[in-house]
Amino acid sequence: MSGRFLEDFTPGQVIASTEWYDITPERIHAFASEYDPQPIHLDPAAAAQSMFGGIIASGWHSLSVTMRLIVRADIFGGAPVVGVGVDNLRYLQPVRAGDRLTAQAEVLGTRPSAKHSDRGYLTLRVTTTRQDGAPVLMQDWTVLVPRRV
Amino acid sequence: MSGRFLEDFTPGQVIASTEWYDITPERIHAFASEYDPQPIHLDPAAAAQSMFGGIIASGWHSLSVTMRLIVRADIFGGAPVVGVGVDNLRYLQPVRAGDRLTAQAEVLGTRPSAKHSDRGYLTLRVTTTRQDGAPVLMQDWTVLVPRRV
Repeated sequence: MSGRFLEDFTPGQVIASTEWYDITPERIHAFASEYDPQPIHLDPAAAAQSMFGGIIASGWHSLSVTMRLIVRADIFGGAPVVGVGVDNLRYLQPVRAGDRLTAQAEVLGTRPSAKHSDRGYLTLRVTTTRQDGAPVLMQDWTVLVPRRV
Repeated sequence: MSGRFLEDFTPGQVIASTEWYDITPERIHAFASEYDPQPIHLDPAAAAQSMFGGIIASGWHSLSVTMRLIVRADIFGGAPVVGVGVDNLRYLQPVRAGDRLTAQAEVLGTRPSAKHSDRGYLTLRVTTTRQDGAPVLMQDWTVLVPRRV
């Protein structure tokens, strides 16, 4: 799909990343050190005592990896992905070192802007999936997309 | 507020970070290179032609900075912040180099788990604010919190 205008998207279309992103101990540590400095992400001994039984990746790390995968899948044909909002985000499974992630976006709907005739809103269900096929994250994005005028 | 149990939170309570996080060109570039490799975050010439008129930080960068600020505000008294989901996330203003961000969380409500008597759900409205007082991000978090048993 090379569409970049609102009219190029129809409900049910699926755009899947063809890449995998490797979650490594070093990547978990680097992200969490800066953005989510909790023992569950940084301290093996403390994490072993937690409900997860060991270190897990920050949820914001997996979300950021998802953005990378979607950007690189180039679903807007080079146009910027201008985020308006995110709804219904759910953490479904913890992500651990050794996991590999991929992502896909399904078009939920489109809606012209009431104010500006040259743009509209696209809603996408974005699912992040682990190497064994289990979804680890789901979320619905609303993004601003140009219309053909 | 040092509460870590569901019973310690009541609607309307506000927990504010006392820190500011500086958004620098280097930080925008480092985050976007790895997690959001779009010209609007990485290429000054392309960004100058965009609706934003210049480089802006990745929304996921500002969200990750928000997590840092909330974690360091220690609203759970050292207990891990176990995310269940995020709703009503809205990007309100672009974030640029030179901006400084802080964050606060307001308790929206609490709900005991129907399945597990030792835990429950806490809902927080998290607002990320710029140095001039303008909110740049709003989102509602649902997190898992232990109950006193």
